Formats: sequence, structure tokens, C-alpha cells
Amino acid sequence: MSRSSPALDRQRLEAGILSRGRELFRHIGKESPSIFNKAHWVGKVLDWCMGNERFKVQLFRFIDVLPYLTTRDSLARHLDEYFGQEESVPAAFRWGLKGAGLMGKLGVGIAGAAVRKNLEMMARGFIVGSTPPETVKRLGELRKQGFAFTVDALGEATISEKEAEENAQRYLELLSALEDAQRAWPALGLPSASLDWGDAPKVNISVKPSALYSQADPLDFDGSVAGILDRLTPICRKVARLGGFLCIDIEMRKLKNITFEVYRRLRSAPEFRDYPHLGLAVQTYLREADGDVDELLAWATRSRLPISIRLVKGAYWDYETVIAQQNGWPIPVYTHKAQTDAAFERNAEKILRAHDICHLACASHNVRSVTAVMEMASVLRVPAGRFEFQALYGMAEPFRRALLKMTDRVRLYCPHGELLPGMAYLIRRLLENTSNESFLRQAFVEEVEVDRLLARPESPPEEKDDGRAASEELPPFANEPVPDWTRREAREAYASALADARKQLGKTYPLFIDGRRIIEKAGRTPAGQASVKRVIAEMGGKNAIIIDDDADLDEAVPAVISSAFGYQGQKCSACSRAIVLDAVYDRFIARLVEAARSLKIGPAEDPANHVGPVIDGAAQSRILEYVALARHEGNIVYSSDAPSGGFYVPLAIVTGITPAHRLAQEEVFGPVLAVMRAKDFSQAIEWANSTRFALTGGVFSRSPEHLERCRREFRVGNLYINRGITGAIVGRQPFGGFRMSGVGSKAGGPDYLLQFLDPRAVTENTMRRGFVADQGS
Amino acid sequence: MSRSSPALDRQRLEAGILSRGRELFRHIGKESPSIFNKAHWVGKVLDWCMGNERFKVQLFRFIDVLPYLTTRDSLARHLDEYFGQEESVPAAFRWGLKGAGLMGKLGVGIAGAAVRKNLEMMARGFIVGSTPPETVKRLGELRKQGFAFTVDALGEATISEKEAEENAQRYLELLSALEDAQRAWPALGLPSASLDWGDAPKVNISVKPSALYSQADPLDFDGSVAGILDRLTPICRKVARLGGFLCIDIEMRKLKNITFEVYRRLRSAPEFRDYPHLGLAVQTYLREADGDVDELLAWATRSRLPISIRLVKGAYWDYETVIAQQNGWPIPVYTHKAQTDAAFERNAEKILRAHDICHLACASHNVRSVTAVMEMASVLRVPAGRFEFQALYGMAEPFRRALLKMTDRVRLYCPHGELLPGMAYLIRRLLENTSNESFLRQAFVEEVEVDRLLARPESPPEEKDDGRAASEELPPFANEPVPDWTRREAREAYASALADARKQLGKTYPLFIDGRRIIEKAGRTPAGQASVKRVIAEMGGKNAIIIDDDADLDEAVPAVISSAFGYQGQKCSACSRAIVLDAVYDRFIARLVEAARSLKIGPAEDPANHVGPVIDGAAQSRILEYVALARHEGNIVYSSDAPSGGFYVPLAIVTGITPAHRLAQEEVFGPVLAVMRAKDFSQAIEWANSTRFALTGGVFSRSPEHLERCRREFRVGNLYINRGITGAIVGRQPFGGFRMSGVGSKAGGPDYLLQFLDPRAVTENTMRRGFVADQGS
Repeated sequence: MSRSSPALDRQRLEAGILSRGRELFRHIGKESPSIFNKAHWVGKVLDWCMGNERFKVQLFRFIDVLPYLTTRDSLARHLDEYFGQEESVPAAFRWGLKGAGLMGKLGVGIAGAAVRKNLEMMARGFIVGSTPPETVKRLGELRKQGFAFTVDALGEATISEKEAEENAQRYLELLSALEDAQRAWPALGLPSASLDWGDAPKVNISVKPSALYSQADPLDFDGSVAGILDRLTPICRKVARLGGFLCIDIEMRKLKNITFEVYRRLRSAPEFRDYPHLGLAVQTYLREADGDVDELLAWATRSRLPISIRLVKGAYWDYETVIAQQNGWPIPVYTHKAQTDAAFERNAEKILRAHDICHLACASHNVRSVTAVMEMASVLRVPAGRFEFQALYGMAEPFRRALLKMTDRVRLYCPHGELLPGMAYLIRRLLENTSNESFLRQAFVEEVEVDRLLARPESPPEEKDDGRAASEELPPFANEPVPDWTRREAREAYASALADARKQLGKTYPLFIDGRRIIEKAGRTPAGQASVKRVIAEMGGKNAIIIDDDADLDEAVPAVISSAFGYQGQKCSACSRAIVLDAVYDRFIARLVEAARSLKIGPAEDPANHVGPVIDGAAQSRILEYVALARHEGNIVYSSDAPSGGFYVPLAIVTGITPAHRLAQEEVFGPVLAVMRAKDFSQAIEWANSTRFALTGGVFSRSPEHLERCRREFRVGNLYINRGITGAIVGRQPFGGFRMSGVGSKAGGPDYLLQFLDPRAVTENTMRRGFVADQGS
Repeated sequence: MSRSSPALDRQRLEAGILSRGRELFRHIGKESPSIFNKAHWVGKVLDWCMGNERFKVQLFRFIDVLPYLTTRDSLARHLDEYFGQEESVPAAFRWGLKGAGLMGKLGVGIAGAAVRKNLEMMARGFIVGSTPPETVKRLGELRKQGFAFTVDALGEATISEKEAEENAQRYLELLSALEDAQRAWPALGLPSASLDWGDAPKVNISVKPSALYSQADPLDFDGSVAGILDRLTPICRKVARLGGFLCIDIEMRKLKNITFEVYRRLRSAPEFRDYPHLGLAVQTYLREADGDVDELLAWATRSRLPISIRLVKGAYWDYETVIAQQNGWPIPVYTHKAQTDAAFERNAEKILRAHDICHLACASHNVRSVTAVMEMASVLRVPAGRFEFQALYGMAEPFRRALLKMTDRVRLYCPHGELLPGMAYLIRRLLENTSNESFLRQAFVEEVEVDRLLARPESPPEEKDDGRAASEELPPFANEPVPDWTRREAREAYASALADARKQLGKTYPLFIDGRRIIEKAGRTPAGQASVKRVIAEMGGKNAIIIDDDADLDEAVPAVISSAFGYQGQKCSACSRAIVLDAVYDRFIARLVEAARSLKIGPAEDPANHVGPVIDGAAQSRILEYVALARHEGNIVYSSDAPSGGFYVPLAIVTGITPAHRLAQEEVFGPVLAVMRAKDFSQAIEWANSTRFALTGGVFSRSPEHLERCRREFRVGNLYINRGITGAIVGRQPFGGFRMSGVGSKAGGPDYLLQFLDPRAVTENTMRRGFVADQGS
């Protein structure tokens, strides 16, 4: 096989890359990507971003919330909250704010509308179309310019099976539209052929598995694979029927191994074994990428199934880093950009060497990376049909045009969809354009000299890393990391621990601490008690999450679901009230109900089930009484089935609750969620505080002012902002409440231990005979 | 009057001083004071001291405790505790320790004995004699060398009227011996005259008022003056009868104004009005010295009573500074030595100008100060009989000899007494010789050049001082300073406040805090209680003070007295047990009983009374029951009278108590002190810990190891080392105990407020769309 062909002459290779790179830059010439064009609003604003980190943060956050700002007031308020305190705002942006002062309320509206219009225009620049006809039309135009495409359907985060099903339908509709269109499209390269360049399908779609199954979970590996395949298979079938190409995308590492398995299962399914146009993406910023590519190539070889890999660098670096640090896992991504770039070339070479079994899609805007692939392909004599180049629609236009001049095969990755998810996509693209390490920024804004841009990626020596996230802020105490269920060994250990535990069921053990039997029989206070008894008590809660009208529902709904129904609501920190602002109420409830409906209920030891039985019969009866009460006090908008056998209760979502209801005041300690519709944010806070309890609470909002109000006024022991309200971690979220929620200071915090200590003050008179020494005794 | 004579020509004066100073130094020649002579043990050890501050501290502390180390074991143990950890110890000293390792237990004894012998010899160098005959003999020898003398009887701190009476008797005995001796002594200067130099009595004694009255107290100004005069008058009478001179010394500033009043009363008493040989000392390190000298001179002039002032600089600088800082008072002493030196010259000049009405005794070892007085006296034409020079016996011998050569009149201040108080005196003298600012050290050890030593004292500009003690360790919170009862205004305010309070007696007031009526009627817990109730309780105590066998009884006895009987023992922090080591038991009890007997009992509003009635009849009955129990369980070795009328109870000291007795276990909350005799220190700690309580505790010890054990093992909320156990100050001694003494953290400490706070933890997810900002919302 060609992959064992002789080693490349590195020096000659570098010379070849340099020469191709210079040529590519010559083709690019003086032209800048439109996004950096300072003649336009977008270019001006981005230019400001790159010189002002704080403004950049505020801008990106504002873009994030913008689609939710549906009223003029809301838009004006957020504009002011995000930018009103800024010392300097770019002129192109400022007029939008200035108006607030000069023109009064009406002016704000006008100014806000202008800002919105500009930002939406920017987002549209990255989206090929929002309806199938629009998209098909634009794709046709691109093809006329010589570019192939792959379409990806943008969508909100998929938090219910209903949404997953809608996403699948959207792909099927899009495919129908494309099927019709492709008949009229002449093939690229060989207009009379049925395939572009004689070998590539004209229709090419990219699908994210996370969009097709809402319950994917690394712990439930098999269930997740099956869930995704259920909806991906019909799409794949349609793609195959119309002779298209399907690429499975990768987003978060969390689902990577599941996605790989989905790909292998699909590729090797009898109905697709002979259909070669199935590919998947590999992100080279992951340290695991080398192993993954090796395995995929080995699998293809072993299975005799040709595959296609889209090599990308990866767009979730911040996210992967933070999640790993939060969980105490080794950071899965390279810490230096050059390491990622080097991994990209390394794996591209491997794939090119295996071109007989694997097709390569080189997806990068980095001139060095791209020309390295060109040069390696040339040296390794890879046939033209075995590799292609991909660029993102709306970005780096001069680059893609130059690329097209040098290689025939350039495919544009074209997002299709609504503006709302489009804004989220916009942020990712802006980050990519404006980050200090961005090749595009360096090449087009910083104007780094060409030869440096084309230099071989040299990574600094790897820091000595114990594999743990290195955060200076963590105290010396280290929590045992949460298991990483993407690891097969972790899942196996879980299963085996469950089996062990089951063997022990029914046996009883006394509790020993420090060799002393602590719990045996109920005892009395011993005579001659040595100390005044202290009480440190963790008691109940009636914890609320406030959903502001600008809350990111993609995050708020799953957080409420997991906080309310995790462990069947049997956590003192559990969410038992959702206080939802009127403006977002209907949309929230609709998504919440569907998300709840998507939860699987059954034995807890099956990782497919997110909801199990409650602790005992007494709990079951009590909870069922509250469900009956709920029917009386409010409207049960969703009540799940409860499996028979075992202490199962239905999950219940109850609307129409106000503070006067028992369901708003009494702790259920079960999966019964009271939903309260608040007319404004003040009422939401008032209601949140209107119980005897003060344990946990949460708020989803993207209004800096509302969040600040919560910090001050939401009276709970543990307040969580824009995340779920359970799962406090020792040392990170010292836990505990006040009012009737408990007494004593927070467990897992620095004050806690002090409550078990007897403070002593020692005072020494160090003066003797009028002689003072500054040290004691 | 001559004090209005024309201003001195300062330039000529300085020239004259310089010339006289150089002459004095010429007379001193190369000879060093014996204490600095490195050929001897003392000189070697002091030389080491001056280069090693930590060794100096340890040495001086060891000297302090030495008289109490009456057994070989005790001596060896302390030697080891004080010096065993030292990295370097002078050779002259080390052999004493080395032996411990080389020669075993016996060796330690021998080595310890050698160290003791050397240190005692050092102390004896400063003491003229320990018995009247010895002292008289030595004084005769000094007179033969041409030196006059003044004798001071050294003694332990005077903590009871018995001791005060013994001190007075000691002076009377000494005077009898001197009376006999003086007949045989030829007069100095004019051998055939009856007075030295024709005008000065041969017999001269110095008396400290604090030695003559144990209950002196600035608040009880009149009572203190009367108490001192009671014993001073017979002494003065005897001095006058034998034609001698009496000088009243000053130690602590606390009794200064009382002492001045004593002097004025004595001097103007009809029986002494015509007897001119009465003087008193003035310390020029006190900022008040100028005013005091002015007043004394004015009083003498007004009263037409010639006086004599011994001008000294003052030996309690550290003490005065610390006490002022502790109490939040302005520091009463100058902070720069040069200020004191300048004040010395300034006041000497005033006195010399007033030589018709005031005789000057210039008491300094500072060549500049002394020659300034000589020169000023010469320029102001002060008759020879109106001033003299004084030096301390045992110090600065070359200086005193040179001084004698230049002036006829040199008087040596000669301490007379036992070794035990002699060791305390030794420390003061060693401090004076070894401090960095010591003229003697500068002149004889550092060999600072003569002209610099003779330069006019120039003090740096006074720091801006808000009058409060400036301690960097004090937190921003500042306690209201304790009244300084030496100030007449403070005493008057006290009396007037008492009168005001008396008018209000019988009226009742509700307690308001923050405008809310806190106490009105007993109420019930309101329905709908908002929080779990927290208890922060300060409860009882059975507080012990341990008296180790090396405790400084001068300090331990008054501390136990004030801790046990202050406020009639009605403080939760009060001492109700004294646990006394066997070796020191008899001496402790003897002094304790006499100290208790010296307390005046009567109405609390009379500042003469240290003990008043208890709070009410119930307390009185309960305490009397415990007194009856005491009679049953142990031996009442002292029980005071209790005035009739009012809720008075007797003070009681009960011996023979062990942990098994109720008197060792139950809180009396009255002036009943249980004394427990412990066989060793371990038993003392065990007994101290043997109650249900753990509030306050104290230990008097000079064993570093025992103190360390107490810090670790003495289980009380507030442990006090070498001081009384009551009077915790907010911010300095956070107060409160554990076991059955209370619950909750310490009042007046940094943790206290936290108990009233509800801790809240706010967690914010700042990641949006995979975009991480390092600031919130």
C-alpha cells in the first residue's frame, strides 16, 4: 500500500510548500476578506474589537443575546447595559448609543434598530440561505463561480426528541430541494459528467449527530449510537438515493467516540457498504486525533471500506479547555496553536499516504496548512480525485478565490438556516477571525510577513503536565475528577461497580468513622455531656430558577430539566420552581415539555434512563399526593408515564402556580416542577424569595443588570447564574442555605471546618522587669 | 531671683562643655567600666549580648528567673530551655551547657552552679550590701575614696500591707545602723565639719513610695497619698532626727503625681518645714517633666520652702511605652534619646537658675549631660553647695572617678538588699549598659569619637503624633482608651458620672438598639419564624490560674488577686481556682493571703475600695453557701470581714481543694478562691482541665517549655500567660469558651460577625457559545 511509501525529503518539502505558499499569496494579492474591510460597518467594528478585548467580549455577548431582543425596549436596555459603561466605543457603533441621549426613547429605538440591522447583516454574510429555495439558488451561484459546496443545516441546540425530529426533517426537505436542483447543474470541471470533476457528487451535506438525537450521553454509549443512527439512516438513505455525499460533523469531544461509532456502523451497514460517498470530520486540536486517524485508517483497511476524512482544526478550544478544567480531566486539546497546525499536517500526510482507502478533505484557511497538503499530495503522487480543499462560506474570500486558481477542487462549507442559530454561528466565525492566533487575522490584519506565515509549525516544548487541568485558582485540595464517560474503561468500571453493588443489596453495615462505630442503635445523649451541642443542619428548599426574557433557552431548558428531574428531584438543591418571564413563557414551556417528554424513565442502573424510581414507598405516596394537589392548584401541562413495579412516580410540570399555592411553598422532594409566570423581573425575584427557604436558586439571563440584581437580591445560599442549580462541588461551591433551609456555615467551604473547632486566644505578657522582648516566653 | 538672670551665650556654653567634656574623658583615660572588661566572665557575656539580640533576651530572662531556681534540676532545666536551642552561645557561657551533654546529670548541676555563681556575682557588683552592717561597712569604704552615698533598700514588689510595713521597718533599721556609723565618719571635703563639704548630710537615703504602700492607685489619689505618708513620715522623722537627707524616688509614671503630692505634703508638714534636706526625683524622659519642674519650682517659691531635685533620665522607657500602647494613651516618654538628653539639660538649667530655692542632684552617666551641668553652673555662678553629681554604684567606675577629680561632689546611688530583688535590679542596669542608645555603651564599647559624644543633643523633628499609641499591629478598629486616672480631669469626670448615675437609680429604661425597642416584655417566638434559631452563648467558667514553681510571684499574686476578687469575682472570666506548684506553694499562699488582707472592702463608688458588695441578695446567699461548703471541703486560710448593710460577702481563700471537690467544679460567681496544691506541672494542667468548663485560664511561669505545653494543652477559650485572666479587650482578646462554657465563636474577634451573616456563594457560567470571557455577565 502506498502509505508505506518512502519518507518525504523534509527540506525539499519545505521548499515546495514555501513556493506554493508564495504563489497562493500572490493570487490573494492586496485583497482583504470582506469582514476586515474598514470601509464598511463590520470591518470598522471588528477592527475595534481586535484592539479592545473588553469591547470584543461585550460585542460578542451582545450578538449572542441579540436574537432574543424582540422588543425595542429590550434592545435599547441591553445596548445600554452592554455598552453604556464602556469608556470607548467605535464611532461606527457609538452613534447607536449617542442617540439614546440625544434623541430620547424614540432615538434609542432607531439607533438600536440600526445596530441590529448591521449585526444581522454580518450574520447573513455567513449563511448561505434561510429557506431551501434561497439556499439552492445561492449554491447554484457559487457553483457558477467554480466552487463546490457542502450544506449544513444550522439549528438551535437540540434539547428534545421533537426538535431532533424536526432537524432530521429539515435535512430531508433540503435534500429534496437539492435533488431537484442538481439535475440542472452542470458538473464542475467536467460539465457534461454527472459528478463534479468526474468523481465528486454535486450534492454534499454535513450533518451534526447532536442535532439528530437529544438524549446522546457518553455513559449511554450504545443507546446514543442507536438514537443517532435512527434518524441519520433515513437521511443517508436519501443522500445515497440522489447520489450525494454525506459528511458527519464533529462538535464537542464529548460525542466524538459515539460519532465515530455511528460512522463505522453507517459505513458498514449492508445498504451503504457499496456507497463510497460517506465521510466524517476529525479535529486535529484534539490530542487524540493521531490515534483516531490511525484507527479509522486501520478500520477502513481491515473492513475494505473506503472512507473520507474531513480534516479540520477544531472550533471549540475554549469550551473543551473549560470543561476539562471543571471536571479535573487532562486538557484534551493542544495548548499551542502550532501543535494543532503540526498535527493537521501530520495527519493529512497519513491520509494522503492512505489515499487508496481514504479520501481527504483539507478544511483550513491557513495558507501554510493548505499548501503543505498540496505539496505533500504532489510529492506522494496522490491522484487528484483523492483530495479536495474546503473553506467556510462568507470567510476569507480572497483566499478561496486564490485557492481555486491553484487547485480545481474547492468546496465551500455553507450553513443554511434561520437567523437565530445564525447569530451563534456568527460568534464562532468572529472568534476565528479575530483571535490573536487566527491565521486570517495574522495574514490580513496584522500583515505578518509571508515567509513567517509559511514557516513549518514549530510548537514550543510541551510543558510538564500531570494530566490535570492546571488552574492557579484551585486550592491545594483537589476533588477526585468526575469520571469521563467517553472513556470505555470508565463505562466498564461503572457497569462492574453496579454489578458489585447489586450483590451487596440487602446486607447491612454499621457506619465506621476513624475506627469508631458511629451508627448502630439509636442512643441517648450520654450523661455528663462535655459540650454545648452545636447544630449544623442542612434542611429543605423550594428552589427556583428564574428564566429572564433574554435567557438562552438552549441552555436554560436543559438546566431546568436536569435540576428539576435529576435524581427524580430528590436533592435538597433540586429546582422545584421555574419562574418564567411572560415574554419568553410560551416558547420556554413548549421546549421544556418536549425536553421532559424526551427523558427516558426506568431502572437507574441502565445508563439510557435519566430518571429512575424514588427512594421508597413513602416518598412515592407523598409525591403522588403532590401530583394530585398540582392537578387541583394548577394545570399539569406534562405528566410522564411511570413504569409499573418499583417506586416510580411521573415527572410532572405544573403551570399556573403563584406564591399563594402550596406547590409554591412546600418541598416535594420529587420530580414535580411548579412553573410560575412572572410579569416582570422584579416580580420574578420577589416570587423567588417568597418562601421560607433559602437554599439554592438560579437565573438564566443575559442582562448584566438583572444578573447584578440577582447577586444582590436573590436570597439563597447558593445562587447559580446561567447554569443548573445542583451539583455543588467541594471547594468550588461551598454549599448550604439559611432561613428555614438550614443553619451553620457552608459545607465544602473554608468556614465549614471552623464550626468544628474551638477557637482559643492566647495572650502573653512578654514584658519582664520592664524589659520588653518582641518574642514570647 | 537669679533664675531670671540673662540668657546664656549658647556658643560659649558649648565651647565650655566641649572643653570640660574632653577633660573628663582625659581623666577617664583608657580604663573601661568593669562590666565591659572582657578579661572577665561578665565582660565576655555582655560583649556577646551586644552582638546578639536574641541571646541578650534569653540571658536577661534567665537572670530574671534565676533567683527562683532553687533546685539543681530546676536550674539545669531552665538553662537548657533558655539556651539549649541557641545556635551560638558565648564560650564563657557555653561550658555551662556543654557539661550537660558531656557530664550527665551531675555535670549539669556543676555547670548550672557555675553559671549561677557568675550571674550572682554580677548582681552583687551593683549592690552595696545585703545586711545593714555589710552595707555600712562598704559605704564607709566608698567615703574613704571620696564618694558620698545615698542608699536605697531594694525589695520585691510590694503587694501587701505587711510587705509595705516590712519595707518601712527595713529603712528604719538601716537608718539606725547609719546613725551609729556616721559619728565615726569624717565629713567629706571638710573632715572636721559635721556635714559633708560643710552643707550635705553624710547619711542620705532614697525611698520609693511604691514600697511603702501596697494599695496605691491613681484613681484613689488622696487615699494613696495618705497611705504613703503614713509610712514615709516616721522614716522622714528618723532621717531628720539624725540629720540625714531623704530623697523620694520615682519609678512608674503611674504614681508620679501622687509622689509629687506626697513630697509637697511632707516638705510642708509643720514638723519638716524647717528641715531642708528633703528632695525628690524628676525623670526627664517624661514629656511632662518640664511642666513638673516649673510647678515644683513655683510651689517652692510660693511656699518659701527650699527643695532639692534629683534630675534623672528615667529607667522604665519600655514599660511606659508598652503600657501607654496597651491602654491607648499618648506615649508619655520621648521617643528619641536626644529629646530626653535635651530635656535633662533644659531642666537642669532651670533648676540651676533657681538655685536659691532648689538644690540640684545631677544623676547621669552621660559625660555631655554632666559637663553641661558643670558649665552651666559655672556660667550662672551657682554656689558649690547648690548642686552635686550622682552615679550608680557598680557602674561606670572610670567615669565616677574622673568626675570626682573634676568636681568635689559625687554621690553614689547604692542599692542595699537581698539577691532576689537584686537580680531584677541587675536587669535594669544591664539594659542601661547594653542598649544601643546607652551613653556608656557608646563611649566604652563602641568608642564613638569624643566630640560626637559631647555634641549638643539634637532631636530629630518630632513625628506628627495624634497622641495615640502608634502600633502597626492594631486593626483599624480602635477601642476607646481606658481612662488615665493619673489625670485629675479623669478622676473628676468619674466622680461626677457616679453622682449622675446615682440620681438615676431606681428608674428603668427600655433597651433600644437602632431605634428598635429590644427589651420590653417577655415575648414568645413569633409565628412563622423566618430562620432556624442560632445560639451564641457565653456561659459559665471555673477558671484556673496555674502558678508554676518559677513563677514571678511579684506578678502572679496581684494577678490572682485582681482576677479572683475584682468585681467580687462576678465575672465569667474570673479566677476561681489557683493551682499552685508544691515548690512555691507556701510562699505563694503567704503573700496571697496578705495581699487579700490588704484589699479595702466597702461601697464601690469610693475609689479607695477595691471590693464592693455583690449584685443582689440571691447572689449573697448563694456565695455564703459556698463559703460554708468551703469550710467543709477545705480550709479557709483567709476570710475577710464583710461590712454590714448591703449585699457584702467575705473574700475567701480556700486551700486543700482537689478536683473531686464541688469547690473545684462549680461556678460560684463570687469572691471565693479555691487553691489546689499540685505535685508537678503535669498534674497542674490536668487539674486545670478537669472541669466541665473551658472559658479562661492563666499560667504564671518562666519556663519556655511549660508555657508551650500550656499553649497546646490548657484547654480554654482564652489563655493568659503571665498576666491576669480578666479584662479581654475587643479586637485584642476575642473572648469566649467551649465545653460547657459556651457555644459560638469569640466575641470581639474577627469570626464573631460571621455568625450573624448568611454566607452566599454565587457561581456564574461565563461561557457563551463556547466563548469564554474572564469576567462575569
